[in-house]
Amino acid sequence: MSDRSRAFAEKFMVRPGKEFRLKDIDPRDGSAFEDEDATKAETDRLSRDIDALQDRLYAEGRRSLLVVLQGTDTAGKDGTIRGVFNATGPIGVSVTAFRRPTETELAHDFLWRAHLACPKRGMIGIFNRSHYEDVLVAKVRGLAPDKVIEQRYEQINAFEKMLTENGTVVLKFMLHISKDEQKERLQERLDNPRKHWKFNPGDLEDRKSWDDFQKAYEALLNACSTEWAPWYVVPADRKWVRNGIVARIVKATLEDMDPQYPKATWKPGEFKVE
Amino acid sequence: MSDRSRAFAEKFMVRPGKEFRLKDIDPRDGSAFEDEDATKAETDRLSRDIDALQDRLYAEGRRSLLVVLQGTDTAGKDGTIRGVFNATGPIGVSVTAFRRPTETELAHDFLWRAHLACPKRGMIGIFNRSHYEDVLVAKVRGLAPDKVIEQRYEQINAFEKMLTENGTVVLKFMLHISKDEQKERLQERLDNPRKHWKFNPGDLEDRKSWDDFQKAYEALLNACSTEWAPWYVVPADRKWVRNGIVARIVKATLEDMDPQYPKATWKPGEFKVE
Repeated sequence: MSDRSRAFAEKFMVRPGKEFRLKDIDPRDGSAFEDEDATKAETDRLSRDIDALQDRLYAEGRRSLLVVLQGTDTAGKDGTIRGVFNATGPIGVSVTAFRRPTETELAHDFLWRAHLACPKRGMIGIFNRSHYEDVLVAKVRGLAPDKVIEQRYEQINAFEKMLTENGTVVLKFMLHISKDEQKERLQERLDNPRKHWKFNPGDLEDRKSWDDFQKAYEALLNACSTEWAPWYVVPADRKWVRNGIVARIVKATLEDMDPQYPKATWKPGEFKVE
Repeated sequence: MSDRSRAFAEKFMVRPGKEFRLKDIDPRDGSAFEDEDATKAETDRLSRDIDALQDRLYAEGRRSLLVVLQGTDTAGKDGTIRGVFNATGPIGVSVTAFRRPTETELAHDFLWRAHLACPKRGMIGIFNRSHYEDVLVAKVRGLAPDKVIEQRYEQINAFEKMLTENGTVVLKFMLHISKDEQKERLQERLDNPRKHWKFNPGDLEDRKSWDDFQKAYEALLNACSTEWAPWYVVPADRKWVRNGIVARIVKATLEDMDPQYPKATWKPGEFKVE
């Protein structure tokens, strides 16, 4: 990663071992970018660069990239995927949405379904929500005792370490919106008939637990931002700022991986197409 | 489907119950479109229409579309996915490439891995190669006796009938290129170092069996083009013609499915976002 890219990424990184407070991050912070139109144009270019780098990753066929997207309801997880990864298209990108676990999933440990959905070599895998729900909802709703939640942090860290040691780079983004912004976005789902299907009355219940969710996020960000798989907290009230930040960090990460088209194990002159 | 769209699709459809000869289809046939630039622009528009229709399909959450792509090496399966489905992006489209079966896959019947990869409700699933390899390679290489191949045709028909009866519309495209065009495309992979990784010496072996593969295709097209899941044979020597044909038929099929944004089961006035 270039020094400039590294410095940019570090602005949003939760430093492993340092105490992190979610309150220090302003969801409306737009200081990373000056101009909306210029940022959108840059994000378009970045998304095409990501496509080109993914082509190399696929050709190389040895490593993969896992992008974890977390955020409260309406934080913009789908919008981020569209803004940053649509140019790459569906051949090289697999998206997994983690919903309420099925009976089969519940019959296994909480990391089982996450492991199953990890990207193959050569692919970019995107988790829309993830194994982190098991230290979020589970903590807020008291579905597991504190001791189990603490154990899960360590289990997640070990799991992600194993992934990175086996060729999967792990990037984790928390899309951070303000309570006011969520209000506007939920209201829009109620007001716009086209968006009715996106509204889930349960979202209002979660909203009542806003502070508890923020605390649960803060706890996992402190426990699970590691040297091998750091968390990035992305100011997400402005969609174009959010997409710009994610696109820059994804591109820099892929450049850092520097995937190479494999050299042929045969000599072109050996073959003749009849 | 409009009468015009239906008439267009039927030009490429293998009519169930009528004898079909692959030789009657010219891989260079460009009569469907007049102008390259206009066709590319139309395909771009169609791919955005497909994205909008997929959004409805996803919101509706009741049905799915399975697109099967078959064709000899270099026929352009990846290129078709990029040209027709990149605008839809990775959230609503899952692509499965069927390669040499794994030990686990071989330990099951031949339809097992295809079934596992079928799209969820709301999704478009694309098979890059498919269960049809088991009546293609298997037939040409004599991996299964004729009697088993004949049985498989019927098993495939029953499987696809079951899928359609349960809400998955099945569209099957054979990308039909000429032997000369394949020669050019294979040679390009040998000549262009950037494309070396795409070249597989085994492709030349398959090319030696060109006529046998064409016969195997003709047999499956006659046996497995059904009222519920017809085959379309797409002249594919020209990439823009190929993409234009596939995009038109996919769009018309989705329009025919006419997915609807679901009506809310609640009254917007019942809720207040605090």
